[in-house]
Amino acid sequence: MNILIIHCHPNPNSFNAALTERAVETLRAVGSNVVVSDLYAQDFDPVEHERHYRHRIDHDNFAPLNEQRNAYKTGTLPADVAREIDRLIWADLVILQFPLWWHAQPAMLKGWFDRVFVSGGLYTSSMRYDRGYFRGKRAICSVTSGAPEQAFGPCGRGGDIHALMWPIQYSLHYMGFDVVAPMLSSGVQGHGYSYQPADCLSAYLEGLLSKWSRRLIGVMDEQPLRFPVWSDWDSLGRAVSAIASQSVSAPKTRT
Amino acid sequence: MNILIIHCHPNPNSFNAALTERAVETLRAVGSNVVVSDLYAQDFDPVEHERHYRHRIDHDNFAPLNEQRNAYKTGTLPADVAREIDRLIWADLVILQFPLWWHAQPAMLKGWFDRVFVSGGLYTSSMRYDRGYFRGKRAICSVTSGAPEQAFGPCGRGGDIHALMWPIQYSLHYMGFDVVAPMLSSGVQGHGYSYQPADCLSAYLEGLLSKWSRRLIGVMDEQPLRFPVWSDWDSLGRAVSAIASQSVSAPKTRT
Repeated sequence: MNILIIHCHPNPNSFNAALTERAVETLRAVGSNVVVSDLYAQDFDPVEHERHYRHRIDHDNFAPLNEQRNAYKTGTLPADVAREIDRLIWADLVILQFPLWWHAQPAMLKGWFDRVFVSGGLYTSSMRYDRGYFRGKRAICSVTSGAPEQAFGPCGRGGDIHALMWPIQYSLHYMGFDVVAPMLSSGVQGHGYSYQPADCLSAYLEGLLSKWSRRLIGVMDEQPLRFPVWSDWDSLGRAVSAIASQSVSAPKTRT
Repeated sequence: MNILIIHCHPNPNSFNAALTERAVETLRAVGSNVVVSDLYAQDFDPVEHERHYRHRIDHDNFAPLNEQRNAYKTGTLPADVAREIDRLIWADLVILQFPLWWHAQPAMLKGWFDRVFVSGGLYTSSMRYDRGYFRGKRAICSVTSGAPEQAFGPCGRGGDIHALMWPIQYSLHYMGFDVVAPMLSSGVQGHGYSYQPADCLSAYLEGLLSKWSRRLIGVMDEQPLRFPVWSDWDSLGRAVSAIASQSVSAPKTRT
Protein backbone atom coordinates (compact mmCIF):
# COMPACT_ATOMS: atom_id res chain seq x y z
CA MET A 1 0.00 0.00 0.00
CA ASN A 2 1.13 3.55 -0.78
CA ILE A 3 0.67 6.15 1.88
CA LEU A 4 1.18 9.90 1.67
CA ILE A 5 1.49 11.99 4.83
CA ILE A 6 0.86 15.71 4.44
CA HIS A 7 2.70 17.05 7.45
CA CYS A 8 2.25 20.65 8.57
CA HIS A 9 4.07 21.97 11.63
CA PRO A 10 6.83 24.59 11.80
CA ASN A 11 8.89 22.72 14.40
CA PRO A 12 10.68 19.46 13.53
CA ASN A 13 10.76 18.62 17.27
CA SER A 14 7.02 19.07 17.76
CA PHE A 15 4.62 16.37 18.88
CA ASN A 16 3.13 16.56 15.39
CA ALA A 17 6.54 15.51 14.09
CA ALA A 18 6.58 12.63 16.59
CA LEU A 19 3.15 11.51 15.36
CA THR A 20 4.34 11.56 11.75
CA GLU A 21 7.52 9.72 12.65
CA ARG A 22 5.52 7.07 14.49
CA ALA A 23 3.16 6.72 11.52
CA VAL A 24 6.08 6.24 9.13
CA GLU A 25 7.63 3.57 11.37
CA THR A 26 4.35 1.75 11.93
CA LEU A 27 3.32 1.70 8.31
CA ARG A 28 6.73 0.74 6.94
CA ALA A 29 6.90 -2.08 9.48
CA VAL A 30 3.82 -3.63 7.86
CA GLY A 31 5.27 -3.28 4.37
CA SER A 32 3.67 -0.05 3.18
CA ASN A 33 5.45 2.57 1.09
CA VAL A 34 5.33 5.94 2.80
CA VAL A 35 6.09 9.40 1.43
CA VAL A 36 5.95 12.53 3.59
CA SER A 37 5.16 15.96 2.18
CA ASP A 38 6.60 18.11 4.95
CA LEU A 39 5.09 21.45 3.97
CA TYR A 40 7.25 23.67 6.19
CA ALA A 41 10.42 21.79 5.21
CA GLN A 42 9.42 22.23 1.56
CA ASP A 43 8.72 25.93 2.23
CA PHE A 44 5.40 25.40 0.49
CA ASP A 45 3.80 28.66 -0.64
CA PRO A 46 0.17 28.61 0.52
CA VAL A 47 -0.86 31.79 -1.28
CA GLU A 48 -2.85 31.35 -4.49
CA HIS A 49 -1.35 34.16 -6.52
CA GLU A 50 -0.81 35.23 -10.11
CA ARG A 51 2.95 34.79 -9.63
CA HIS A 52 2.43 31.01 -9.86
CA TYR A 53 1.09 31.18 -13.43
CA ARG A 54 3.72 31.95 -16.03
CA HIS A 55 1.51 31.12 -19.00
CA ARG A 56 -1.58 33.14 -18.22
CA ILE A 57 -4.80 32.74 -20.13
CA ASP A 58 -5.74 36.25 -19.01
CA HIS A 59 -2.99 38.73 -18.21
CA ASP A 60 -5.31 41.54 -17.16
CA ASN A 61 -7.54 39.84 -14.65
CA PHE A 62 -6.38 37.09 -12.35
CA ALA A 63 -9.22 34.59 -11.97
CA PRO A 64 -7.64 31.74 -9.99
CA LEU A 65 -9.91 28.96 -11.19
CA ASN A 66 -9.53 29.95 -14.85
CA GLU A 67 -5.75 29.97 -14.53
CA GLN A 68 -5.80 26.62 -12.71
CA ARG A 69 -7.87 25.07 -15.52
CA ASN A 70 -5.59 26.53 -18.17
CA ALA A 71 -2.40 25.48 -16.41
CA TYR A 72 -3.67 21.93 -16.01
CA LYS A 73 -4.73 21.72 -19.67
CA THR A 74 -1.48 23.15 -20.99
CA GLY A 75 0.79 21.24 -18.61
CA THR A 76 2.08 24.42 -17.00
CA LEU A 77 1.07 23.82 -13.39
CA PRO A 78 3.49 25.20 -10.78
CA ALA A 79 6.15 22.57 -10.04
CA ASP A 80 5.24 22.28 -6.35
CA VAL A 81 1.58 21.72 -7.17
CA ALA A 82 2.40 19.13 -9.85
CA ARG A 83 4.58 17.24 -7.36
CA GLU A 84 1.82 17.14 -4.74
CA ILE A 85 -0.68 15.92 -7.34
CA ASP A 86 1.67 13.13 -8.45
CA ARG A 87 1.99 12.02 -4.84
CA LEU A 88 -1.78 12.07 -4.34
CA ILE A 89 -2.31 9.97 -7.47
CA TRP A 90 0.28 7.48 -6.19
CA ALA A 91 -1.28 7.17 -2.71
CA ASP A 92 -3.95 4.76 -1.53
CA LEU A 93 -4.20 6.50 1.82
CA VAL A 94 -3.58 10.17 2.61
CA ILE A 95 -2.88 11.26 6.18
CA LEU A 96 -3.11 14.96 7.06
CA GLN A 97 -1.08 15.68 10.20
CA PHE A 98 -1.49 19.14 11.72
CA PRO A 99 -2.19 21.14 14.88
CA LEU A 100 -5.57 22.83 15.27
CA TRP A 101 -4.91 26.55 14.96
CA TRP A 102 -7.99 28.74 15.23
CA HIS A 103 -10.35 25.80 14.87
CA ALA A 104 -8.87 24.72 11.54
CA GLN A 105 -5.68 23.75 9.74
CA PRO A 106 -2.68 26.15 9.75
CA ALA A 107 -2.61 28.60 6.83
CA MET A 108 0.12 26.63 5.10
CA LEU A 109 -2.07 23.55 4.91
CA LYS A 110 -5.13 25.61 3.97
CA GLY A 111 -3.13 26.90 1.02
CA TRP A 112 -2.26 23.34 0.07
CA PHE A 113 -6.00 22.82 -0.47
CA ASP A 114 -6.32 26.15 -2.31
CA ARG A 115 -3.49 25.42 -4.74
CA VAL A 116 -3.21 21.64 -5.14
CA PHE A 117 -6.86 20.69 -5.72
CA VAL A 118 -6.77 22.15 -9.21
CA SER A 119 -10.01 23.20 -10.89
CA GLY A 120 -10.67 21.56 -14.24
CA GLY A 121 -8.04 18.93 -13.52
CA LEU A 122 -8.84 17.31 -10.20
CA TYR A 123 -12.47 18.40 -10.14
CA THR A 124 -15.17 19.74 -12.42
CA SER A 125 -18.83 20.55 -11.79
CA SER A 126 -19.67 16.86 -12.44
CA MET A 127 -16.47 15.26 -11.07
CA ARG A 128 -17.00 15.85 -7.37
CA TYR A 129 -18.14 14.05 -4.20
CA ASP A 130 -18.89 10.37 -4.90
CA ARG A 131 -17.85 11.06 -8.51
CA GLY A 132 -14.65 12.75 -7.36
CA TYR A 133 -11.20 12.33 -8.87
CA PHE A 134 -9.79 10.48 -5.84
CA ARG A 135 -12.70 8.06 -5.33
CA GLY A 136 -11.47 4.73 -4.04
CA LYS A 137 -8.76 6.43 -2.00
CA ARG A 138 -8.99 7.08 1.71
CA ALA A 139 -8.07 10.06 3.90
CA ILE A 140 -7.68 10.67 7.62
CA CYS A 141 -6.88 13.82 9.57
CA SER A 142 -4.64 13.48 12.62
CA VAL A 143 -4.84 16.64 14.68
CA THR A 144 -3.38 17.95 17.92
CA SER A 145 -4.81 20.44 20.38
CA GLY A 146 -3.66 22.09 23.56
CA ALA A 147 -7.12 21.84 25.13
CA PRO A 148 -8.21 18.63 26.84
CA GLU A 149 -10.44 16.15 25.02
CA GLN A 150 -13.46 16.91 27.23
CA ALA A 151 -13.63 20.45 25.79
CA PHE A 152 -14.33 19.13 22.27
CA GLY A 153 -17.80 17.72 22.89
CA PRO A 154 -21.08 19.36 21.80
CA CYS A 155 -20.96 23.06 22.76
CA GLY A 156 -17.68 22.41 24.56
CA ARG A 157 -15.26 25.22 25.13
CA GLY A 158 -12.79 24.07 22.50
CA GLY A 159 -15.54 23.63 19.93
CA ASP A 160 -17.16 20.37 18.91
CA ILE A 161 -14.53 18.32 17.11
CA HIS A 162 -17.05 17.53 14.34
CA ALA A 163 -17.66 21.24 13.75
CA LEU A 164 -13.94 21.94 13.69
CA MET A 165 -13.25 19.20 11.18
CA TRP A 166 -16.28 19.68 8.98
CA PRO A 167 -14.89 22.11 6.35
CA ILE A 168 -11.67 20.13 5.98
CA GLN A 169 -13.32 16.73 5.81
CA TYR A 170 -16.07 17.90 3.48
CA SER A 171 -13.37 19.25 1.17
CA LEU A 172 -11.75 15.81 1.11
CA HIS A 173 -15.16 14.26 0.43
CA TYR A 174 -15.60 16.81 -2.39
CA MET A 175 -12.43 15.39 -3.96
CA GLY A 176 -13.82 11.87 -3.76
CA PHE A 177 -11.90 10.56 -0.76
CA ASP A 178 -13.45 8.18 1.74
CA VAL A 179 -12.81 10.08 4.97
CA VAL A 180 -12.55 8.21 8.25
CA ALA A 181 -13.07 9.78 11.67
CA PRO A 182 -10.28 12.13 12.73
CA MET A 183 -7.58 11.17 15.21
CA LEU A 184 -7.52 13.77 17.98
CA SER A 185 -4.44 13.96 20.18
CA SER A 186 -5.59 16.46 22.79
CA GLY A 187 -3.88 18.03 25.77
CA VAL A 188 -0.66 18.59 23.86
CA GLN A 189 0.31 21.86 25.51
CA GLY A 190 2.66 24.41 24.05
CA HIS A 191 2.34 23.06 20.51
CA GLY A 192 5.61 21.25 20.95
CA TYR A 193 6.05 18.35 23.34
CA SER A 194 9.72 18.96 23.97
CA TYR A 195 8.94 22.07 26.06
CA GLN A 196 7.13 20.09 28.72
CA PRO A 197 8.25 18.72 32.06
CA ALA A 198 9.22 15.15 31.34
CA ASP A 199 7.62 13.00 34.09
CA CYS A 200 3.98 12.09 33.67
CA LEU A 201 3.67 14.04 30.45
CA SER A 202 6.03 11.76 28.58
CA ALA A 203 3.92 8.72 29.49
CA TYR A 204 0.80 10.57 28.39
CA LEU A 205 2.35 11.48 25.05
CA GLU A 206 3.71 7.98 24.55
CA GLY A 207 0.15 6.76 25.10
CA LEU A 208 -1.06 9.06 22.34
CA LEU A 209 1.64 7.81 19.97
CA SER A 210 0.73 4.18 20.70
CA LYS A 211 -2.94 4.92 20.16
CA TRP A 212 -2.16 6.46 16.77
CA SER A 213 0.00 3.52 15.83
CA ARG A 214 -2.74 1.00 16.72
CA ARG A 215 -5.34 3.02 14.87
CA LEU A 216 -3.24 3.08 11.70
CA ILE A 217 -2.94 -0.69 11.54
CA GLY A 218 -6.69 -1.01 11.06
CA VAL A 219 -7.45 2.25 9.30
CA MET A 220 -8.26 0.68 5.92
CA ASP A 221 -10.96 -1.45 7.57
CA GLU A 222 -12.74 1.42 9.30
CA GLN A 223 -16.16 2.49 8.15
CA PRO A 224 -15.82 5.90 6.46
CA LEU A 225 -17.82 8.89 7.65
CA ARG A 226 -20.97 9.40 5.65
CA PHE A 227 -21.45 12.70 3.88
CA PRO A 228 -24.23 13.56 1.44
CA VAL A 229 -23.73 12.34 -2.14
CA TRP A 230 -25.19 13.15 -5.55
CA SER A 231 -28.26 10.97 -5.04
CA ASP A 232 -29.13 13.07 -1.99
CA TRP A 233 -29.48 16.31 -3.96
CA ASP A 234 -31.82 17.85 -6.49
CA SER A 235 -30.47 19.73 -9.51
CA LEU A 236 -29.98 22.92 -7.49
CA GLY A 237 -27.96 21.09 -4.87
CA ARG A 238 -30.70 21.07 -2.23
CA ALA A 239 -30.88 18.02 -0.01
CA VAL A 240 -33.90 15.83 -0.52
CA SER A 241 -36.03 15.85 2.59
CA ALA A 242 -35.06 12.43 3.95
CA ILE A 243 -31.40 13.23 4.32
CA ALA A 244 -31.85 16.82 5.38
CA SER A 245 -33.54 15.66 8.54
CA GLN A 246 -30.75 13.24 9.52
CA SER A 247 -27.00 13.19 9.94
CA VAL A 248 -24.22 15.41 8.64
CA SER A 249 -26.22 18.47 9.56
CA ALA A 250 -24.78 21.85 10.38
CA PRO A 251 -24.07 23.56 13.66
CA LYS A 252 -27.23 25.39 14.60
CA THR A 253 -26.78 28.98 15.56
CA ARG A 254 -29.23 30.77 17.77
CA THR A 255 -30.12 34.35 16.96
CA MET B 1 -17.84 54.84 14.24
CA ASN B 2 -14.59 53.20 13.21
CA ILE B 3 -14.76 50.32 10.78
CA LEU B 4 -12.00 47.98 9.67
CA ILE B 5 -12.43 45.84 6.56
CA ILE B 6 -10.12 42.85 6.27
CA HIS B 7 -10.22 42.27 2.53
CA CYS B 8 -8.82 39.10 1.01
CA HIS B 9 -8.96 38.49 -2.73
CA PRO B 10 -6.08 38.30 -5.22
CA ASN B 11 -7.86 40.28 -7.93
CA PRO B 12 -8.57 44.01 -7.50
CA ASN B 13 -11.33 43.69 -10.13
CA SER B 14 -13.11 40.86 -8.35
CA PHE B 15 -16.65 40.99 -7.04
CA ASN B 16 -15.14 40.82 -3.56
CA ALA B 17 -13.39 44.09 -4.38
CA ALA B 18 -16.72 45.54 -5.52
CA LEU B 19 -18.33 44.50 -2.22
CA THR B 20 -15.53 46.16 -0.26
CA GLU B 21 -15.74 49.29 -2.38
CA ARG B 22 -19.50 49.45 -1.84
CA ALA B 23 -19.05 48.97 1.91
CA VAL B 24 -16.51 51.81 2.05
CA GLU B 25 -18.84 54.16 0.13
CA THR B 26 -21.90 53.23 2.17
CA LEU B 27 -20.22 53.55 5.54
CA ARG B 28 -18.40 56.79 4.75
CA ALA B 29 -21.65 58.27 3.48
CA VAL B 30 -23.13 57.87 6.97
CA GLY B 31 -20.09 59.44 8.62
CA SER B 32 -18.07 56.39 9.64
CA ASN B 33 -14.28 56.18 9.44
CA VAL B 34 -13.22 53.22 7.33
CA VAL B 35 -9.83 51.55 6.99
CA VAL B 36 -9.21 48.63 4.64
CA SER B 37 -6.54 46.00 5.29
CA ASP B 38 -6.17 44.65 1.76
CA LEU B 39 -4.16 41.52 2.54
CA TYR B 40 -3.07 40.71 -1.02
CA ALA B 41 -2.17 44.34 -1.71
CA GLN B 42 -0.14 44.35 1.52
CA ASP B 43 1.48 41.04 0.48
CA PHE B 44 0.61 39.78 3.93
CA ASP B 45 2.61 36.69 4.90
CA PRO B 46 0.15 34.09 6.23
CA VAL B 47 2.78 31.61 7.39
CA GLU B 48 3.49 31.49 11.12
CA HIS B 49 7.23 30.95 10.98
CA GLU B 50 10.34 31.47 13.08
CA ARG B 51 11.56 34.05 10.56
CA HIS B 52 9.03 36.52 12.04
CA TYR B 53 10.67 36.47 15.49
CA ARG B 54 14.00 38.27 15.65
CA HIS B 55 14.21 38.24 19.45
CA ARG B 56 13.57 34.61 20.19
CA ILE B 57 12.92 33.33 23.68
CA ASP B 58 14.05 29.89 22.50
CA HIS B 59 16.44 29.65 19.57
CA ASP B 60 16.51 25.87 19.45
CA ASN B 61 12.84 25.00 19.37
CA PHE B 62 10.23 27.14 17.65
CA ALA B 63 7.06 27.03 19.75
CA PRO B 64 4.79 29.60 18.04
CA LEU B 65 2.65 30.48 21.06
CA ASN B 66 5.68 30.95 23.31
CA GLU B 67 7.31 33.26 20.78
CA GLN B 68 4.05 35.18 20.32
CA ARG B 69 3.77 35.72 24.07
CA ASN B 70 7.39 36.81 24.32
CA ALA B 71 7.19 39.15 21.33
CA TYR B 72 4.07 40.80 22.73
CA LYS B 73 5.63 41.25 26.15
CA THR B 74 8.90 42.62 24.82
CA GLY B 75 7.33 44.84 22.15
CA THR B 76 8.99 42.93 19.32
CA LEU B 77 5.95 41.78 17.39
CA PRO B 78 6.41 41.63 13.62
CA ALA B 79 5.53 45.04 12.12
CA ASP B 80 2.68 43.70 9.97
CA VAL B 81 1.08 42.00 12.97
CA ALA B 82 1.44 45.10 15.16
CA ARG B 83 -0.23 47.21 12.47
CA GLU B 84 -3.19 44.82 12.19
CA ILE B 85 -3.59 44.79 15.98
CA ASP B 86 -3.58 48.61 16.11
CA ARG B 87 -6.32 48.67 13.50
CA LEU B 88 -8.39 46.09 15.40
CA ILE B 89 -8.08 48.09 18.62
CA TRP B 90 -9.20 51.20 16.77
CA ALA B 91 -12.23 49.55 15.17
CA ASP B 92 -15.77 49.28 16.53
CA LEU B 93 -16.82 46.98 13.70
CA VAL B 94 -14.66 44.51 11.76
CA ILE B 95 -15.79 43.23 8.37
CA LEU B 96 -14.07 40.18 6.89
CA GLN B 97 -14.55 40.13 3.11
CA PHE B 98 -13.47 36.97 1.31
CA PRO B 99 -14.43 34.24 -1.17
CA LEU B 100 -15.20 30.75 0.14
CA TRP B 101 -12.33 28.56 -1.00
CA TRP B 102 -12.55 24.94 0.08
CA HIS B 103 -15.34 25.66 2.57
CA ALA B 104 -13.31 28.26 4.45
CA GLN B 105 -11.32 31.46 4.13
CA PRO B 106 -8.37 31.64 1.67
CA ALA B 107 -5.00 30.67 3.17
CA MET B 108 -3.91 34.29 3.34
CA LEU B 109 -6.81 35.19 5.62
CA LYS B 110 -6.37 31.98 7.64
CA GLY B 111 -2.82 33.09 8.29
CA TRP B 112 -4.09 36.48 9.43
CA PHE B 113 -5.88 34.61 12.23
CA ASP B 114 -2.78 32.47 12.95
CA ARG B 115 -0.44 35.45 13.23
CA VAL B 116 -2.49 38.48 14.35
CA PHE B 117 -4.46 36.99 17.26
CA VAL B 118 -1.38 36.89 19.44
CA SER B 119 -1.22 34.51 22.39
CA GLY B 120 -0.56 36.15 25.73
CA GLY B 121 -1.40 39.55 24.29
CA LEU B 122 -4.85 39.33 22.71
CA TYR B 123 -5.91 36.22 24.58
CA THR B 124 -4.96 34.11 27.58
CA SER B 125 -6.58 31.04 29.11
CA SER B 126 -8.93 33.32 31.06
CA MET B 127 -9.25 36.17 28.52
CA ARG B 128 -11.37 34.44 25.90
CA TYR B 129 -14.98 34.18 24.69
CA ASP B 130 -17.26 36.56 26.63
CA ARG B 131 -14.13 37.68 28.53
CA GLY B 132 -12.24 38.18 25.28
CA TYR B 133 -9.96 41.10 24.44
CA PHE B 134 -12.31 42.53 21.81
CA ARG B 135 -15.53 42.28 23.82
CA GLY B 136 -17.85 45.15 22.96
CA LYS B 137 -16.71 45.12 19.36
CA ARG B 138 -18.64 43.54 16.53
CA ALA B 139 -17.64 41.40 13.56
CA ILE B 140 -19.32 40.23 10.36
CA CYS B 141 -18.12 37.95 7.58
CA SER B 142 -19.11 38.83 4.02
CA VAL B 143 -18.44 35.87 1.77
CA THR B 144 -18.89 35.02 -1.89
CA SER B 145 -19.46 31.66 -3.53
CA GLY B 146 -19.80 30.33 -7.04
CA ALA B 147 -22.55 27.91 -6.05
CA PRO B 148 -26.16 29.09 -5.85
CA GLU B 149 -27.71 29.94 -2.49
CA GLN B 150 -29.97 26.87 -2.51
CA ALA B 151 -26.94 24.59 -2.25
CA PHE B 152 -25.99 26.03 1.16
CA GLY B 153 -28.91 24.66 3.17
CA PRO B 154 -28.75 21.66 5.54
CA CYS B 155 -26.93 18.80 3.79
CA GLY B 156 -26.87 20.89 0.62
CA ARG B 157 -24.26 20.25 -2.03
CA GLY B 158 -22.22 23.36 -1.24
CA GLY B 159 -22.27 22.59 2.48
CA ASP B 160 -24.50 24.19 5.07
CA ILE B 161 -23.47 27.83 5.38
CA HIS B 162 -23.48 27.51 9.19
CA ALA B 163 -21.04 24.59 9.04
CA LEU B 164 -18.80 26.48 6.64
CA MET B 165 -18.70 29.55 8.82
CA TRP B 166 -18.48 27.84 12.20
CA PRO B 167 -14.68 27.67 12.68
CA ILE B 168 -14.19 31.24 11.53
CA GLN B 169 -17.04 32.70 13.54
CA TYR B 170 -16.19 30.71 16.66
CA SER B 171 -12.65 32.06 16.41
CA LEU B 172 -14.04 35.60 16.36
CA HIS B 173 -16.23 34.72 19.34
CA TYR B 174 -13.10 33.35 21.08
CA MET B 175 -11.54 36.80 20.69
CA GLY B 176 -14.59 38.40 22.30
CA PHE B 177 -16.32 39.80 19.24
CA ASP B 178 -20.09 39.88 18.92
CA VAL B 179 -20.53 38.07 15.61
CA VAL B 180 -23.58 38.74 13.49
CA ALA B 181 -24.91 36.38 10.81
CA PRO B 182 -22.73 36.17 7.71
CA MET B 183 -23.55 37.94 4.46
CA LEU B 184 -23.55 35.36 1.67
CA SER B 185 -23.30 36.63 -1.90
CA SER B 186 -23.85 33.41 -3.82
CA GLY B 187 -23.83 32.57 -7.50
CA VAL B 188 -20.78 34.73 -8.17
CA GLN B 189 -19.23 32.58 -10.86
CA GLY B 190 -15.60 32.58 -11.80
CA HIS B 191 -14.47 34.27 -8.60
CA GLY B 192 -14.39 37.58 -10.42
CA TYR B 193 -17.46 39.32 -11.75
CA SER B 194 -15.71 41.02 -14.62
CA TYR B 195 -15.36 37.72 -16.52
CA GLN B 196 -19.10 37.26 -16.91
CA PRO B 197 -21.48 38.11 -19.71
CA ALA B 198 -22.84 41.51 -18.85
CA ASP B 199 -26.62 41.35 -19.39
CA CYS B 200 -28.68 39.82 -16.62
CA LEU B 201 -25.63 39.06 -14.53
CA SER B 202 -24.83 42.70 -13.98
CA ALA B 203 -28.32 43.32 -12.59
CA TYR B 204 -27.96 40.29 -10.34
CA LEU B 205 -24.62 41.49 -9.02
CA GLU B 206 -25.89 45.02 -8.56
CA GLY B 207 -28.69 43.49 -6.49
CA LEU B 208 -26.12 41.76 -4.28
CA LEU B 209 -24.20 45.01 -3.80
CA SER B 210 -27.38 46.87 -2.85
CA LYS B 211 -28.35 44.14 -0.42
CA TRP B 212 -24.93 44.39 1.25
CA SER B 213 -25.20 48.16 1.42
CA ARG B 214 -28.66 48.00 3.05
CA ARG B 215 -27.48 45.35 5.50
CA LEU B 216 -24.52 47.48 6.60
CA ILE B 217 -26.70 50.44 7.51
CA GLY B 218 -28.39 48.43 10.24
CA VAL B 219 -25.60 46.05 11.16
CA MET B 220 -24.95 47.54 14.61
CA ASP B 221 -28.59 46.93 15.55
CA GLU B 222 -28.65 43.27 14.60
CA GLN B 223 -28.88 40.59 17.25
CA PRO B 224 -25.52 38.78 17.42
CA LEU B 225 -25.31 35.02 16.95
CA ARG B 226 -25.26 33.16 20.25
CA PHE B 227 -22.31 30.93 20.99
CA PRO B 228 -21.61 29.17 24.28
CA VAL B 229 -19.99 31.32 26.97
CA TRP B 230 -18.09 30.70 30.21
CA SER B 231 -21.24 30.18 32.26
CA ASP B 232 -22.17 27.30 29.95
CA TRP B 233 -19.05 25.25 30.79
CA ASP B 234 -17.65 23.31 33.69
CA SER B 235 -13.99 23.60 34.64
CA LEU B 236 -12.95 21.07 32.00
CA GLY B 237 -14.76 22.99 29.29
CA ARG B 238 -17.67 20.57 28.98
CA ALA B 239 -21.04 22.10 28.22
CA VAL B 240 -23.57 21.89 31.00
CA SER B 241 -26.44 19.69 29.93
CA ALA B 242 -28.97 22.42 29.22
CA ILE B 243 -26.96 24.10 26.52
CA ALA B 244 -25.53 20.93 25.04
CA SER B 245 -28.99 19.87 23.99
CA GLN B 246 -29.76 23.16 22.21
CA SER B 247 -28.27 25.49 19.67
CA VAL B 248 -24.76 25.97 18.35
CA SER B 249 -24.28 22.24 18.10
CA ALA B 250 -21.97 20.51 15.71
CA PRO B 251 -22.54 18.86 12.37
CA LYS B 252 -23.46 15.28 13.11
CA THR B 253 -21.55 12.72 11.16
CA ARG B 254 -22.91 9.25 10.56
CA THR B 255 -20.60 6.32 10.80
